[in-house]
Amino acid sequence: HRILLLPGDGIGAEVLEAGRHVLDQLALARGLSINYETGLIGGAAIDDMGEPLPADVLEAARRADAVLLGAVGGPKWHDLPGNKRPEVGLLALRSALGVYANLRPIIVRPGAVDRSPVKAEIASGTDILFVRELTGGLYFGDKGTEGDSAYDICRYSRHEIERVVRMAAIAARQRRGKLSLVDKANVMETSRLWRAVTQEIISRDFPDIELEILLVDAATMHLITRPRDFDVIVTENLFGDILTDEASVLTGSIGLIPSASLGASGAGLYEPVHGSAPDIAGQGKANPIGMIESIAMMLDHSLGLPTEAKALRAAIGAAMAQCVTVDLGGTASTMDMARAIADQLD
Amino acid sequence: HRILLLPGDGIGAEVLEAGRHVLDQLALARGLSINYETGLIGGAAIDDMGEPLPADVLEAARRADAVLLGAVGGPKWHDLPGNKRPEVGLLALRSALGVYANLRPIIVRPGAVDRSPVKAEIASGTDILFVRELTGGLYFGDKGTEGDSAYDICRYSRHEIERVVRMAAIAARQRRGKLSLVDKANVMETSRLWRAVTQEIISRDFPDIELEILLVDAATMHLITRPRDFDVIVTENLFGDILTDEASVLTGSIGLIPSASLGASGAGLYEPVHGSAPDIAGQGKANPIGMIESIAMMLDHSLGLPTEAKALRAAIGAAMAQCVTVDLGGTASTMDMARAIADQLD
Ligand SMILES: CC(C)[C@H](C(=O)O)[C@@H](O)C(=O)O
Ligand SMILES: CC(C)[C@H](C(=O)O)[C@@H](O)C(=O)O
Repeated sequence: HRILLLPGDGIGAEVLEAGRHVLDQLALARGLSINYETGLIGGAAIDDMGEPLPADVLEAARRADAVLLGAVGGPKWHDLPGNKRPEVGLLALRSALGVYANLRPIIVRPGAVDRSPVKAEIASGTDILFVRELTGGLYFGDKGTEGDSAYDICRYSRHEIERVVRMAAIAARQRRGKLSLVDKANVMETSRLWRAVTQEIISRDFPDIELEILLVDAATMHLITRPRDFDVIVTENLFGDILTDEASVLTGSIGLIPSASLGASGAGLYEPVHGSAPDIAGQGKANPIGMIESIAMMLDHSLGLPTEAKALRAAIGAAMAQCVTVDLGGTASTMDMARAIADQLD
Repeated sequence: HRILLLPGDGIGAEVLEAGRHVLDQLALARGLSINYETGLIGGAAIDDMGEPLPADVLEAARRADAVLLGAVGGPKWHDLPGNKRPEVGLLALRSALGVYANLRPIIVRPGAVDRSPVKAEIASGTDILFVRELTGGLYFGDKGTEGDSAYDICRYSRHEIERVVRMAAIAARQRRGKLSLVDKANVMETSRLWRAVTQEIISRDFPDIELEILLVDAATMHLITRPRDFDVIVTENLFGDILTDEASVLTGSIGLIPSASLGASGAGLYEPVHGSAPDIAGQGKANPIGMIESIAMMLDHSLGLPTEAKALRAAIGAAMAQCVTVDLGGTASTMDMARAIADQLD
């Protein structure tokens, strides 16, 4: 298995190191052979190579079975022009790899729910899978300035919508059979296309799936007032960015949340949702579980190792019962947590 | 004072009737002379006149000192083409009146905080004024379909940003002196213009104001985890739509939240934030406080009656201590609540 490691910026390197420690232990315990390559992306790549996604890093990503990414961005690069920022490297990577579906599971765990700002009786039991479209919309549309104005174009084709809705519907079928589409069809033309295509696909090819349709403004309320009612949520790129961050508060810490970005091939890009968190970088305060859960998703989706994924998730659960990181009110460092998980894998 | 009443759809008529009852009582008690006109908008106007904003209604709105609007939209009109929907009437009205700033106060009241899904120790004391840009962005940009694709254009000019940021900064000066800008400057070109213009205006003309800048994804988390830290939040149209609905959950009921839409002149458009809520329409279950608080904002901003606004707000507070509507777990009907408030105005 060929894995490309891209630490990126901020806490990215710490959580990736923790993840690698756990993966090495898993490989040892289960006799897996994993080849690692490492590359620069984001601000780190700008500082070293003058661009946020160097060509040889992209080549390495294309060759790999999976890419594990820490995080990109930070105040150091805020004054760069829009098309030269660290984030551009991440967006270019997502686009070049064709990973159009970003899976973000939001699972509220008993051990962390007390840290949630939402009442435990509302948040507990929540188990949502977000399927965010990742390579279209406002992120990749034409944009620029014209005199005293600026513009961004949001564009979606039927094909772009169809493939991600299909992936979401298949996931819903393997879960509780419910799919929620979030859009703004009372205002946006692209949302009206999303709605038409989704209704068509579900009624034709997934008659067993219950389809619910919500406006994005209403969805932000329902996520906090009745989170347990959701199973799979599919939505366009920007709404997915916004709603997954919002829903992360239910869990007690965004540091717990993994993601998998998948396309037509089995290769994938795996990254925790938390971002580079420059305020705590280098202090060992980052929670590595978002990264380690991302590794579990990688075992499932790109490496074809579901038994190992299950063992890893069990190890995370067991370690969390003993070891509490700073974001959840404990004192365990990033590497303490990684070691606690690795110990469970012996 | 000339006021145009636009009940619209769903619970719009009920809450507007309740609001008018209270306003009549206030006029009587304080010797105000108010002239009412009534018009159709939204689905009601489509059904009766074939269009969501009839020309004579727009004319009446232009003549009025203030427009009081219930709500528009509902499933009955969901299958109409995008440019013929009830919402188009509301958007056209906002645009034609030039009400570019939508003020939405989110105040968590002691009597309702227990209904909030967010823990009381986090939500209580929250007092945020959202200033949402209302006549630009994706709502009003060019949009359409092209072959198998659809597109929406988000466009902002320096002038559009400047005027609403100024209004927000002036409001912050009258409050706690803090302004938060929410954008997505790591992705959107329009956000980068918002950020540049806002920083320029604040540093040049409002050096006494503390400016905080947040990405929209992060803002959805902070609104739930540390709502008391916000004072005034200024943002573009779609982000404002999303974030104000999200923040409404803090209060325990979206039925409590008013809004004022203002432009360069003193005239304004006043509407509760809750929407048409077709599921409870006609049952007397709607909370009229969002509407009645909108009337208080109208007294302040368009009618120049701050003493009356204060008296009305005091009456609302006193009535809420005695009378609890269905959304807050009580049994009082829409008109029970209106009468309880009117009684306080004697
Ligand atoms: C870093 C940024 C461009 C990115 C996004 O908006 O997609 C991040 O917020 C995310 O959600 O992965
Ligand atoms: C009805 C709809 C078009 C409207 C909007 O999105 O502006 C509503 O959600 C609001 O917030 O006033």
